[in-house]
Amino acid sequence: MTATDDLLEARERLLGPSLSLSYRTPLHIVRGEGAYLYDADGRAHLDCVNNVAHVGHAHRRVVEAGSAQMRRLNTNTRYLHELVLSYADRLTALLPDHLEVCYFVNSGSEANELALRLARTATGRPDVATVDGAYHGNTQRLVEVSPYKFGGPGGEGRRDDVQVMPLADPYRGAHRGEGLETAAEYLAEARAVLQGEAERGHAAGAVIAEAIPSVAGQVVPPSGWLAGLFDAARSVGAVPIADEVQVGFGRVGVDAWAFGAAGARPDIVTMGKPIGNGHPLGAVVTTRAIAEAFANGMEYFNTFGGNPVSAAIGLAVLDVIDEEGLQEHARVTGERLIAGLRELASRHEAIGDVRGMGLFVGIDLVRDRDTREADAELARELANVAAERGVLLSTDGPFHNVMKIKPPLVFSAADADRLVETVDAVLGELATG
Amino acid sequence: MTATDDLLEARERLLGPSLSLSYRTPLHIVRGEGAYLYDADGRAHLDCVNNVAHVGHAHRRVVEAGSAQMRRLNTNTRYLHELVLSYADRLTALLPDHLEVCYFVNSGSEANELALRLARTATGRPDVATVDGAYHGNTQRLVEVSPYKFGGPGGEGRRDDVQVMPLADPYRGAHRGEGLETAAEYLAEARAVLQGEAERGHAAGAVIAEAIPSVAGQVVPPSGWLAGLFDAARSVGAVPIADEVQVGFGRVGVDAWAFGAAGARPDIVTMGKPIGNGHPLGAVVTTRAIAEAFANGMEYFNTFGGNPVSAAIGLAVLDVIDEEGLQEHARVTGERLIAGLRELASRHEAIGDVRGMGLFVGIDLVRDRDTREADAELARELANVAAERGVLLSTDGPFHNVMKIKPPLVFSAADADRLVETVDAVLGELATG
Repeated sequence: MTATDDLLEARERLLGPSLSLSYRTPLHIVRGEGAYLYDADGRAHLDCVNNVAHVGHAHRRVVEAGSAQMRRLNTNTRYLHELVLSYADRLTALLPDHLEVCYFVNSGSEANELALRLARTATGRPDVATVDGAYHGNTQRLVEVSPYKFGGPGGEGRRDDVQVMPLADPYRGAHRGEGLETAAEYLAEARAVLQGEAERGHAAGAVIAEAIPSVAGQVVPPSGWLAGLFDAARSVGAVPIADEVQVGFGRVGVDAWAFGAAGARPDIVTMGKPIGNGHPLGAVVTTRAIAEAFANGMEYFNTFGGNPVSAAIGLAVLDVIDEEGLQEHARVTGERLIAGLRELASRHEAIGDVRGMGLFVGIDLVRDRDTREADAELARELANVAAERGVLLSTDGPFHNVMKIKPPLVFSAADADRLVETVDAVLGELATG
Repeated sequence: MTATDDLLEARERLLGPSLSLSYRTPLHIVRGEGAYLYDADGRAHLDCVNNVAHVGHAHRRVVEAGSAQMRRLNTNTRYLHELVLSYADRLTALLPDHLEVCYFVNSGSEANELALRLARTATGRPDVATVDGAYHGNTQRLVEVSPYKFGGPGGEGRRDDVQVMPLADPYRGAHRGEGLETAAEYLAEARAVLQGEAERGHAAGAVIAEAIPSVAGQVVPPSGWLAGLFDAARSVGAVPIADEVQVGFGRVGVDAWAFGAAGARPDIVTMGKPIGNGHPLGAVVTTRAIAEAFANGMEYFNTFGGNPVSAAIGLAVLDVIDEEGLQEHARVTGERLIAGLRELASRHEAIGDVRGMGLFVGIDLVRDRDTREADAELARELANVAAERGVLLSTDGPFHNVMKIKPPLVFSAADADRLVETVDAVLGELATG
């Protein structure tokens, strides 16, 4: 087995320096199973952050489906094949009726790119409205519509064809609270942005949003916000796009989709990360009208998108979610986890807020509960010390002070309890340390 | 087995209408092996067009490497893992010494997107110079730098931050011939474009080109063209990018890379299609200086890029190319194929030109050898009739009259002979029919 130092040296020599490694003591992971990752020394780590390994690391059913199809055929969609059609059928059956046409791609970034192109072609408008703090992917245009990126280190700032609406953050935002009235305050501001831009000849062609903004800090917006935002989008003629790359496929428990849990009605939905349990896969589902407008003479072809291996894997993931009841499991386990973390808040002053839905949870760490000053240092320490104890967490949010929890959905009640106990113990030690 | 009509109906209902199907009688392909695809009736089709299935459809070695790693672990690059580093080591060893830093992505489009972002960050310049007729991918920015797309049906036209240099086409271009003098004429025009734009404050940050332009019509430019183009790029401070998505990994026979065969020196190389034998994979390799400039504080993270399964598959493809001597095989078989097709030209007036390198070949079909008027109708008929006889060809080029030949590299001498015989027979029948 290669030593960690050799791997670090090779990584520094061979991979781009803009790629970060997790944890102060980087992990050399060689195997995965269920909610656990195993390092080269055979040590198990409870994975609380990889929402990509949605139905569990190396799930046998998914592996077998992919392997069997690789042995048979892997080619493009210019030939007929059952699997891509069965998969499209299954995926659309999980969505509202008006979302009926599928495009398959290789990542969430490719999905969001295509969603913006669909909206742009359907409306004839290049302008995009986005939510503050959002991240939608790593291409040029997606960085341009991601305030998290263009407004951060190395960013080029906001472009003239991008509009930023406020993040409806019940804990840190300008308006606080979780109800309809708070949503209305954020929505009034969003409408003002959209209408102001429309008046200066920049009516948005697309409004893109996550139902539960993730890199913005695992924020659960107030009730009615996303539905109202999409109504506001329609009122200026923009296509409402729900980015489900982080939160889709049953993670939120009460619905297959976070936009569904929010009662919102998108005209485009994008999917990535969990969709293939790690296999490079993404999807865009839209209305017939938008798909037809996009067929303007320019072909959209994606070399690998919709190949039979990807379709077989995507189908297997849907099967496993169904057969193992993972959506309901996410709801029940998420409730237990959130309750456990909220109980900790009664004993740890540093826990300013615990929020989430299903197995998509955030802990907002603060220096002071009254000022809500973000405590990035504590968040970093908590992640590092917990990792040393075999519990993998990560930080996020504009102030890097939010513990991000989004484990494989097979995460058990015992795993949830262990996570709560670890956070309890480490926060206690760091407070007195 | 589902009937073809049912599959067509489901496809129309479920997939985007901007996706085209190959051949008048669409093929329902269920299995692949070597250079052959098999339909639902068990009929074999010689695959002369899928350069993605580079080492042969469903190659056992590649399938086993992918399957074994899927069973073990598939996760992201924020942990240490040997395979991504071994793969980066092997890939850079195939490239000139100055190309030493790798980024792994999920497709050729993602690779070209990242290449443009690298060049833009390194130079601080958004402007991109591209070659007429080129296609570089399906994202917003890549469509903007693809004259084949932005200048074609549904295209928005050339943007102000995109510069188009002439395609150095020895057969159809403004300057004809294959030697250095012809190259010099095209290069003078390219320099005029680059310098003119620089003078109006739009100096290009990137010059992107394929060594053997593919969708532009499988064009083999005159000697010295790409090397000169990249020199011209450097003279205005632009980063020269070689797009090897179609032509890399030994296809051209005399070198692992088409830019190498052309004697050119890029500072960024992009890879896709053949790199994973169908698995969604892409890569960008660049210089240390460009990689360091890109590390400006903004992280570049690609969720699936560089995962251990993709790395295992990429490594297996490199192993098979080596062990089966596929690069040399492509050279020898390509020479035989090109010689056979050129012999046909002595008997078929419709063959205006046969060009190519290794197993990347084009047949330019014309109505008249003197006027060189493109014969798209004949090309379409040839593809359709040959497909009915079990030989899969495709058309390309701005006039849709070029037969595109880029088979899996395991394509044998007998396969090449059969392809030549089929073209001979079908052209004969269509001429007298």
